[in-house]
Amino acid sequence: MPWTLAARATRMNPSVIREILKVTERPGIISFAGGLPSPATFPIAEFAAASADVLRRDGPAALQYAASEGYGPLREQVAASLPWPVDPAQVLITTGSQQGLDLVAKVLVDAGSRVLVETPTYLGALQAFAPMEPQVVPVASDDEGVDLDDLAAKAAGARFLYLLPNFQNPTGRTMSEARRAALSAAAARLGLPIVEDNPYGDLWFDRPPPPPLTARHPAGCLYLGSFSKVLAPGLRLGFLVAPPALYPKLLQAKQAADLHSPSFNQRMAHQVLQGDFLGRHVPRIRTLYREQRDAMLAALEREMRGLDVQWNAPDGGMFLWARLPAGMSAIELLPEAVERGVAFVPGAAFYADETPDAQALRTLRLSFVTASREQIDTGVRALAAAIRARGAGR
Amino acid sequence: MPWTLAARATRMNPSVIREILKVTERPGIISFAGGLPSPATFPIAEFAAASADVLRRDGPAALQYAASEGYGPLREQVAASLPWPVDPAQVLITTGSQQGLDLVAKVLVDAGSRVLVETPTYLGALQAFAPMEPQVVPVASDDEGVDLDDLAAKAAGARFLYLLPNFQNPTGRTMSEARRAALSAAAARLGLPIVEDNPYGDLWFDRPPPPPLTARHPAGCLYLGSFSKVLAPGLRLGFLVAPPALYPKLLQAKQAADLHSPSFNQRMAHQVLQGDFLGRHVPRIRTLYREQRDAMLAALEREMRGLDVQWNAPDGGMFLWARLPAGMSAIELLPEAVERGVAFVPGAAFYADETPDAQALRTLRLSFVTASREQIDTGVRALAAAIRARGAGR
Repeated sequence: MPWTLAARATRMNPSVIREILKVTERPGIISFAGGLPSPATFPIAEFAAASADVLRRDGPAALQYAASEGYGPLREQVAASLPWPVDPAQVLITTGSQQGLDLVAKVLVDAGSRVLVETPTYLGALQAFAPMEPQVVPVASDDEGVDLDDLAAKAAGARFLYLLPNFQNPTGRTMSEARRAALSAAAARLGLPIVEDNPYGDLWFDRPPPPPLTARHPAGCLYLGSFSKVLAPGLRLGFLVAPPALYPKLLQAKQAADLHSPSFNQRMAHQVLQGDFLGRHVPRIRTLYREQRDAMLAALEREMRGLDVQWNAPDGGMFLWARLPAGMSAIELLPEAVERGVAFVPGAAFYADETPDAQALRTLRLSFVTASREQIDTGVRALAAAIRARGAGR
Repeated sequence: MPWTLAARATRMNPSVIREILKVTERPGIISFAGGLPSPATFPIAEFAAASADVLRRDGPAALQYAASEGYGPLREQVAASLPWPVDPAQVLITTGSQQGLDLVAKVLVDAGSRVLVETPTYLGALQAFAPMEPQVVPVASDDEGVDLDDLAAKAAGARFLYLLPNFQNPTGRTMSEARRAALSAAAARLGLPIVEDNPYGDLWFDRPPPPPLTARHPAGCLYLGSFSKVLAPGLRLGFLVAPPALYPKLLQAKQAADLHSPSFNQRMAHQVLQGDFLGRHVPRIRTLYREQRDAMLAALEREMRGLDVQWNAPDGGMFLWARLPAGMSAIELLPEAVERGVAFVPGAAFYADETPDAQALRTLRLSFVTASREQIDTGVRALAAAIRARGAGR
């Protein structure tokens, strides 16, 4: 064949999660694997009304080419929704926040550039950064986020630190107020830019998380947001907020990547968002997801009794993080679990290191938002049975 | 500021066209500049019906995350619509065909890779390729497309030849059957892959263009298509057809870029396309655009009399290519034209060379599809006046 692949293509590999999701699409499998928002939360009637209105009122513009920056009124809504002063001129509408990660990598990452990430971190970010061939450096992290000593030791020359401070994917953990303050000070001292990814921040259960890192130091942070978790992922709409010094290059990268995000979708979202829609809608998502988290915690408490399994109790978001008995590998457990009708993502997928250690191999991510509460009960029981069988087999 | 830009960011520059379009957005300016399809051709009623149906029948799936490959039934429609045997498994739905160019560059272009392009060529492709830092090599081209002798002289080691064989942007020219046959043979002989971009192929006026190059040699060609010119650009839907050897890497690049194109939009397009919609709809676009081309040709004939201005008569598409009197620069003419109420794109913007020569500086691109026939008359008269003034001023 005449084709020669770019060197970076060797860095592009099928997503582990994607391959797992294929398995979980088999009928009858209860999936704790995917990060799919509950479709029960999608405002279908509001979208139907908005699409009809937008096409009737504004059809030619909604279906035409448009500015790469995004739809002005939507950018204004985004700016007004954020808890620090944001000029709409600093908002760039992206084709999902995944595209924000692609643009960030294009503009900030050279081959070999050091990029710091939490341990573990969002797999999609690793995939978005990979084509630009960074040296991804995992920073040790505890229940409150990145370890500041390890960060200081690794920060020299890094292009940025990428993190998800709220209800992190995959661990569900949230960075404490104290850690944020200390990290913000450390980043300023180290001259280390921060790329703050916040798709889950609105999905808190009892109280809002502390303010974003970007709010503390907007010039040193690039903020990524998403409509996927509060409206719906199928519109592919996200946004970034960039310091003035970076915005023009990100905009040019956006223009080259897909000219602009769909004008029609942006106008639909704008219309749905009017009149504080999220103020009424998001509390319903929070209530549903809290109930589902509680169902999973109760099922784990019940079913894992006597097994040396640990898990956390996230304060929001979509994911819970668990740890199998010492010496057990989640990767090896997965086929056994699927056999019994339940799927999850082995935590090793989220570690930037090429060869995860024994601790990483014990971890797994459980989504509590896609399955129903009944399925959660059944699925956790099946998972416990798989762990028991696997333990007995060793 | 703490941010360090990637080296490639120096290659990302504001689009000349984009800057020009800003000027043309001034009220009262007649624009022959943008490549905007006529909104009169957008099937607004069909989209309204489709969006209502999709949300009613299939709302949760239409608003959920989806496969990176695209919506299966839409991929089948695309495969069935193409004039050579295409397996739907080789079709990847993209966020506009602009994204196809981004994915192609990521998968096939290393820093310094030679990429061959027509002279002149689509500016958006140059922008999409630029972040991967290719060495773009312009191949001499005549009215029928690339010059095969120059191609043979430059092909060694090139990653691919990028071309638009039908109603090319910016020149409106179409590659003849004989040139296609010869190019296809030459590419096979040289081991040179072809990236064939065909957004305008359906917009023929009198007879269809010859079959795509990809139809002749699918394993050696990567084909890009778009719904922007036959449905509407605002949905941001395009597609690529890739040889099996390339598809997995393009898919991984797609997944990293934006996970997938909007599920909702893909289902809307699928529904609108059912029942041979394009078989009824596209002939109306052809009729409209042919009338507008004729109006522009007539106006040029009338208004440019006595001026040493030349232009072609494209057989389809959206653009006409003109040449100013010897020694006159379209870049210098533009402010004079805008002053008189008409805008165009200087042809120099479409040349890959950094310093366009005197011949390139004389050229300009005129879109005949966005302005009305009355505006075409007025605009061409204003353009002639500007050329006359500029000529007198020299």
